[in-house]
Amino acid sequence: MSANIPVTAALVREAAVRIRPLARRTPVMTSRSADSLAGAPVFFKCENLQRGGAFKIRGASNLILSISGEQLECGVVAYSSGNHAQATAIAAQHVGAVATIVMPQDAPRSKMDATRDCGARIITYDRLRDSREAIAAQILKDLGATLVPPFDHPLIIAGQGTAALELLEEIPHLDALVTPVGGGGLLSGCATVAKEMNPRIRIFGAEPALADDTFRSFAAGERVEIPPPETIADGLRSPKPGELTFPIVQRLAEAIVLVSEDEIRAAVKFLLLRMKILVEPSGAVSAAAVLFHKLPPELRSIGVILSGGNVDFEDLAGY
Amino acid sequence: MSANIPVTAALVREAAVRIRPLARRTPVMTSRSADSLAGAPVFFKCENLQRGGAFKIRGASNLILSISGEQLECGVVAYSSGNHAQATAIAAQHVGAVATIVMPQDAPRSKMDATRDCGARIITYDRLRDSREAIAAQILKDLGATLVPPFDHPLIIAGQGTAALELLEEIPHLDALVTPVGGGGLLSGCATVAKEMNPRIRIFGAEPALADDTFRSFAAGERVEIPPPETIADGLRSPKPGELTFPIVQRLAEAIVLVSEDEIRAAVKFLLLRMKILVEPSGAVSAAAVLFHKLPPELRSIGVILSGGNVDFEDLAGY
Repeated sequence: MSANIPVTAALVREAAVRIRPLARRTPVMTSRSADSLAGAPVFFKCENLQRGGAFKIRGASNLILSISGEQLECGVVAYSSGNHAQATAIAAQHVGAVATIVMPQDAPRSKMDATRDCGARIITYDRLRDSREAIAAQILKDLGATLVPPFDHPLIIAGQGTAALELLEEIPHLDALVTPVGGGGLLSGCATVAKEMNPRIRIFGAEPALADDTFRSFAAGERVEIPPPETIADGLRSPKPGELTFPIVQRLAEAIVLVSEDEIRAAVKFLLLRMKILVEPSGAVSAAAVLFHKLPPELRSIGVILSGGNVDFEDLAGY
Repeated sequence: MSANIPVTAALVREAAVRIRPLARRTPVMTSRSADSLAGAPVFFKCENLQRGGAFKIRGASNLILSISGEQLECGVVAYSSGNHAQATAIAAQHVGAVATIVMPQDAPRSKMDATRDCGARIITYDRLRDSREAIAAQILKDLGATLVPPFDHPLIIAGQGTAALELLEEIPHLDALVTPVGGGGLLSGCATVAKEMNPRIRIFGAEPALADDTFRSFAAGERVEIPPPETIADGLRSPKPGELTFPIVQRLAEAIVLVSEDEIRAAVKFLLLRMKILVEPSGAVSAAAVLFHKLPPELRSIGVILSGGNVDFEDLAGY
C-alpha cells in the first residue's frame, strides 16, 4: 500500500497475478483497413472490452486488493470523471468495502449510472469551481477511508501497466506502443513493463490538443498545469501530469503527440463502423494518433491501447 | 459445385478447411449483463467481427473456392441486400474473378460502398417492382458467369454452418443455439453441424415479426411467401424460405421465434453500449430473442450467432 515503492516491471507482474479475479484478459484486434490507413500493422489492445468498460479496473483492483481487511472496513474513496469511479466501485464491491465516489456533475450519465449500479455512494462537484482533491480529503478525514487515486500511486500505475504486459506477451516484437494520456497512469505503467520486455520499443503518449498538459510538460521539462480542458475526451481532462507518473513518462516516452477533436471523432467512427467496436473519445485518442500519422513514418508495427468504451448513446449519435 | 449434394456435417467440416484463407475465426464473447438479462449464460459468436463484417464470407468463399479456374474466368454474379454482395466481392477478388452484384437501390450506403471497394460491378434494382432473380438470370446468360446464391445452395449452407462449428468447438455443451433467419442459410447450416456435434442441442431461429415468412412457413408446414417486408433488419427481408434450406429448418429447428422492431433496436443498443460491439439490426435479432425471453425459460446455456455488423452511422444514430 505504500506510495513510496518504486514502479518496476516486477511490480507490474505482481499486479497481473493479483488482479486476475477482477480484470479480464482483453483481446488484441487487427484490421486490414487500419493497417492500410496507418501504413503499418496495428495491434489494438481492446480495453473497451474490459470489465467496467475501461482499463481502470486494473489499477483500482491492484490497489484495493492490497488493502488490509481492517482498513477496508473504513471504506475507499475515489475522485474521477467516470471510468476510475466505476472501477473503484466494482473492486470495492468485490471485497465487500463501501466506496464513496466524488464525480464532476457533468460526467457522462452512463458512467454515473454504472458507478451507482455497483453500489457506490456518489458525491458530485462543479468541475470548474470546486477542488475534487479537497472534497475527497475531507471525506477521507471524516471516514478514515483509503484513497484510491486515479493515477498517482505505484500500485495504480503498476496495475495499468498490465495492459501492455498482456499485449506484449501476445505480440512481442512491436516497434512502438502508444497509449492515451490523462494523468499518465496508463502510459507510465505500460512504458515501464514494455521497455523491460522489449528495450527497443518506442513509447508514445497521445493527448487531445485541447488537453495538452503532458505535451507542454514534456517540452518544458517540468510539470505544467493548464486551465480545465474542454476536450470531448472526458477521461483525459486532468489539468497536469502526476508527480509520480511524469518522471516515468519523461524517462521512457519518446514523444507526446497531439490530436484534434475532429481526429478523435473520426477515430471513434472508424473503430465503430470499420472494426465494429465502441471506443469512447478518450480511448480512441491513441488510435487517432496512428490513423492520422502523428507517429514517425518508419514504424513497422504499432501497439495501440484503446483505453475504454463508455459513452452515452446521445453523445455518440452527435459525432 | 453441384446444387444436388446433400447438406451434411461432413460438408460443413470440409467447408471449414476450404474457407480458412478467407474467413476469420471470430471470437466468442460473454457479458455479465447479458447473462443476467437472459437468465442463463449466453455465448455470443461475433460474426460482426468477421471479414466483410458478416458471416456471409463463409458461404460465398466456400462456393467460389469450389469453382474451376476456367469457369471463374466468366466471373460470378450475386444478388443481395448487402452483406452477401460484399462477401462475394471479397471472395471473387481473392481468386481473381470479376464479380457482378445486383443490389436493391435502397441498400445501406455503407454496404454498397464496401462492395464497390472490393472491385465489384454493381447493378441496382427497385426492390418493390423488379425481380432480382430475373435480372441476375439475364446477366448469367449474357456472361456465362456462375451464380453465387445468397442461401439456397449446399455449399453456401455448409459454409454458413462453419460459424456454429467454431462456436461448438469452443463451447460444446450448449443447451440451445439461436440464429437470425432470412432465407435460412445460416440457420440450416448451423443446425446441421450443431445437431451432429451435440444431438441434444435445441435449435431456434429468430425472425423480425415484420418479416415472418419462415415463422409462417414453419406453422403451415410448407414454404409461404409474404409481401416484401419493411423491417429495419434489412438483411432478413427475403419474402420466403429457401427450397433447400426450409426442409432442413423444418427437420432440425424446434421453433421460429419473433421479435419486434423495438426489441431489435434495443438489442442493437444493448450490444453497443454494454458489450461495446456494433451489430446491425439483422445480426441482433438473435440477441433480441434471448434478451426479451422468446426462448423456453429452462435453458441453462445459449449460443447466439450475431450475424453481422454493417450499418450506416446515420441509421444507427436514429435508433
